[in-house]
Order: sequence, then structure tokens, then C-alpha cells
Amino acid sequence: MKRLENLRWVIIAPEAEVTKWTAAFKAKQPAIQLEVGPKVEQPESVDILLLWNHPTGCLAPFTGVKLYYSLGAGVDHLMKDKGLLPQVPICRIVDPLLSFSMSNYILFAVLHYQRQWDKYTQDRAEKIWDHDAVCERAVKIGILGLGTLGSDAAKKLQLMGFEVMGYSPSRKALPNIKTYVEGELPTFLAACNVLVCTVPFTPATQGLLSMPLFKQLKSPTYLINVARGGVQVEADILEALDKGYLSGAFLDVFETEPLPKDSPFWEHPKVQITPHIASITNPEAGVGQILDNATAVQKGEALQHTVNSKKGY
Amino acid sequence: MKRLENLRWVIIAPEAEVTKWTAAFKAKQPAIQLEVGPKVEQPESVDILLLWNHPTGCLAPFTGVKLYYSLGAGVDHLMKDKGLLPQVPICRIVDPLLSFSMSNYILFAVLHYQRQWDKYTQDRAEKIWDHDAVCERAVKIGILGLGTLGSDAAKKLQLMGFEVMGYSPSRKALPNIKTYVEGELPTFLAACNVLVCTVPFTPATQGLLSMPLFKQLKSPTYLINVARGGVQVEADILEALDKGYLSGAFLDVFETEPLPKDSPFWEHPKVQITPHIASITNPEAGVGQILDNATAVQKGEALQHTVNSKKGY
Repeated sequence: MKRLENLRWVIIAPEAEVTKWTAAFKAKQPAIQLEVGPKVEQPESVDILLLWNHPTGCLAPFTGVKLYYSLGAGVDHLMKDKGLLPQVPICRIVDPLLSFSMSNYILFAVLHYQRQWDKYTQDRAEKIWDHDAVCERAVKIGILGLGTLGSDAAKKLQLMGFEVMGYSPSRKALPNIKTYVEGELPTFLAACNVLVCTVPFTPATQGLLSMPLFKQLKSPTYLINVARGGVQVEADILEALDKGYLSGAFLDVFETEPLPKDSPFWEHPKVQITPHIASITNPEAGVGQILDNATAVQKGEALQHTVNSKKGY
Repeated sequence: MKRLENLRWVIIAPEAEVTKWTAAFKAKQPAIQLEVGPKVEQPESVDILLLWNHPTGCLAPFTGVKLYYSLGAGVDHLMKDKGLLPQVPICRIVDPLLSFSMSNYILFAVLHYQRQWDKYTQDRAEKIWDHDAVCERAVKIGILGLGTLGSDAAKKLQLMGFEVMGYSPSRKALPNIKTYVEGELPTFLAACNVLVCTVPFTPATQGLLSMPLFKQLKSPTYLINVARGGVQVEADILEALDKGYLSGAFLDVFETEPLPKDSPFWEHPKVQITPHIASITNPEAGVGQILDNATAVQKGEALQHTVNSKKGY
């Protein structure tokens, strides 16, 4: 069995990611040299590919690869490339810090709405002291997608004292949280007035947040999307805001990123936006998992945090 | 023993409070008539006084009162009146909804700082998409005051995954939270970089948040005050922001409320303000407690939620 530093490691990712991951590998395992792809010599002898938003189709020359690794929790950037070798395992980062960040972001978005931060910001600008207005909105939070991140947020919101429900295609048991499964989506949507989208981006979730779904909401609902921009149809969000299906939206992800300067979201009074920062993978935590899985691949042992390529997550 | 509706009940409070509490009593116990004070006939035969910010000194004529009730969690508005009959018990509202609101507010303020909401608001106004900046601040949260509200916030912040410590004059045991007691305030202050003030307002805490305390902070610290304005010295907060002892402040309470139009806080770039809305007592929940305590007073039984008039809370 080759030592980890004698394998060939290639990273294909935007420059900022390459810098971060190179530093994290250097700190943890300086003997490992990360080559930066996609253009490297003798691609057929590369063992491990570390990937984030690689150019689709560029992986074909890597015919000897033993492990594809997504440098984040999502794998949609990988799955959209139809040229992956089907027998090669795909892993992703599962990081407690990532859940921490994501749940904090979701809770901030919920509280921003529940405590009417918009109103108090506006009042402050006009030097208005309005102590007597009702300052809290009654919220029933529905978490759409109960994977690692969605479940963590659901649990924490419940511990904060909120009424929380969740939907996921397969049954998930979470204490004190009513969960809905495949076929019960309309009941779930009718019951909440804050909808938090944490689904993975797959062909099944593409364009899910659109008018047919919004029309199933029984109360005007506040939408929080921290999943992927491809899950939402932005024209439909605008229409649902206009028509009152949505009371507002807090969006971290967009169909096109960076969000184009002419997007109406920049100035929409019912919309809050952030530049895809709900949860940022922490390379320090990720390197250990990658090294463990690289060792497991070499030994033919079971991998952790693998992706089911049929389900797409 | 007289029936509760045969007692004389007087409420002395601002008009908005009188309206809310009258409606809540009517809904729960319509036979009870709340008289609105302080000027009522035969004050000496009044049995129960429901109080919120009464004019100091106006209670002297109520010589037969059997119970003073604060219509909120705080009793500083009562204790500053030296004319209270010493043998008459004082109770206050202890409401789980009040903890819910207060902890939500505190968590919002923490997350507002930790997730750099100011930066993203500013960026949005300029249509800047800055995905690569560090988007989370490392925070160590110190809760100054571990009463019902402070302890609830401490527990919830800890469950969210934050590092939390707490200070209270007497020892409080809270799971996974390091607590400090009398004499250890400097150690506590040196250890945190977010300071959440939840102390009761008493002669001992008056002006506590002032330069001598700020100078004991070892890292620039973000101040969150949800206690009472009298606990803070506003000129010192401004000085501490200028000199870097404080990195920012999130204030719900002020020395003078409503906050005067000429206060520098309205436009200070490092300060967030709200009009004393962190936690608003919910009369529906409070009426039940008041009725229980009124019955107990009649029967000579032990009261709940009493105030220690020596400690002042």
C-alpha cells in the first residue's frame, strides 16, 4: 500500500479555494503535494481528485482516479458532470462547524423576521421610538430537507422554543418535531408560515421553490433558502411576493452567482440577501476526513461521508 | 375568606398597560373589576395593587394593601419608591414567554454581530457581492447576571454551540457553562468578547456598565444590554467605543426612555438600538399567576415569584 504522500493528489477549484486547501494540507500533512488541475501531466496516474466547481467535462483524462472528493457539503457541482467514472466513490465534507454556521445563519434569518428587524431598522433611521407595537411575529417553522444540516437547524430551533416541523422524502425521527414524508408535502406546506429550504440540489429539487409549491402555502410564508440557487425560480419568488403567497424572503443563494447587478432582489423591500455565506467549509476540519478516506480507499475499507450517486446526495 | 372578585383591585400603570391588563383580566376572570389608580375612592380599603412605573410616592394612601404586584419581570420601578409598606409582599411576573422573547432577542443580537450583519447590509446597499470575506466572528459570550432570564439565554446559546460563561454574585450551576461568582468579575470580564447584561436594576448595579468595568475587558468586547438603562453610563459607552474597549453595542434600554432625539446612539455606526422591546410581558400568562398569588395571600399560604426587598430583586 502506498503511503498517502506517494499518491498523486489533484485539486480543481476556484483560486480562493485552492489557496485555503493547500494551506490546510500543508499544516496537517506537509508531505502531501497538491497539484493544481485540471491541466496536469499524466492525468491517468492521478489517484485522488479534490473538487469544487470544476469545469464540467474536464475529468475525462483522469482515468485512474480512485476517489472524487467534494470540498464542501454539496455535491451538485460534481453530479452535473456526466463524465464521472461510475465505479469510483464520491465523498463530501461533513463538518460540525459547517452545521454550526448553517444553523446560526438560519436562526438569524428566522429571528430577523420574527423580531421584525426591518421595522426597527426603518424606525431608527427616522428616529422613531415605537415601544408599543407588537414586536414579535408568531412563527411555525417548516424545514424542507432533513439531512445533516436541516436536522441540526430543526433541533436547535426547537430547543430555542419554536414550533418546528420538517419534511424529508424518507422518514426522519427528531424529538418534538413533527415530520412529514413523501406524499405529505401539501400538508407540511399548509402547516407552516416560515419555510426553510435545506434540500440538496438534485434533478428532483431543481426549480422546486416555484409557484406550484408556493400556491400550496396556506398562510403568507416567509421563505429562507440556504440550499442552492438552482432550487429556486426567482421570477416565481417575485410573483409570490407580489401576490402575497410569500410574506418575504431571506436568500443566501441565487440562480446566477454572483447575483447580477440588475437583479430586483438587491433593492426589493421584502427580500434580504447575502452572498452565499450561510455556511463555509472549514478546510482545517475537512483535511482529516479526506486523509481518513484516502487511507480507507487504499485498504479497501468502508468510506465515510459517501454520496449515493443515484439519489444525487 | 373573600372571593377574588370581592377584593378591591387597583392598577396603576401607563395607559397602554392598563388597556392590555384590563382586557386580559376580563378574558380570564370577568367578575374582577380593575379600578384604575392612583386616584380612587377609599384607597385604604384596596387589597391588591398592580403596578408598572407608578408615580413615586402615590402609594401612601393604600394603607390596607395586601399585595404589591409588578406587571413585569423587573421590580426596580417599585423598589425606588421608599413608601412601600414593609410587611406587604411584592411579587413579579415570571413568564416562560418572557424568557423565550428575551433569549431570542439576545441570540439575535449575538448573531447580528457574529455574522457581521452590518457588513452585509452595507454591501447590499452598494450592490457588492463579497463571498470570500471571513463571514463569522469568533465569539466568547459572557452573561452578566444569571437570573431566570440570563440563565435561559446562557443555556440556549450553549445549546447553539457557542462558548458561554456567566457571572452572578451567588454560585449558579449550569451544564457546560463556566460560572464566576462575587470576586471573580475581573476574570470573567477578561475571558469574554461579547458581554450580555441581564442584571436586575438595583443600587448595586446602577451605573455598572461604565469605564471602570470596560477597562477590565481584555479583548475589544461587544456589549449587549437588555437589563435597564440605569445599569449603563451612556457617556462611558461612547468613550469605550472610541477607545476600543468596546467593539460595538446592541442596546435595548437607555438612561432616558424614549431615547432623546439628540442621543448620539441614533446614528452611531457601531451601535444598534431598539425601543425597549427585548421582552414584553404577556398579560394572558401573567393573570393566572396574579390570581394564584391573590388566593394564596387570602389563605395565608406561600406565594410564588416573590421579591426579596433587601436584594431588590
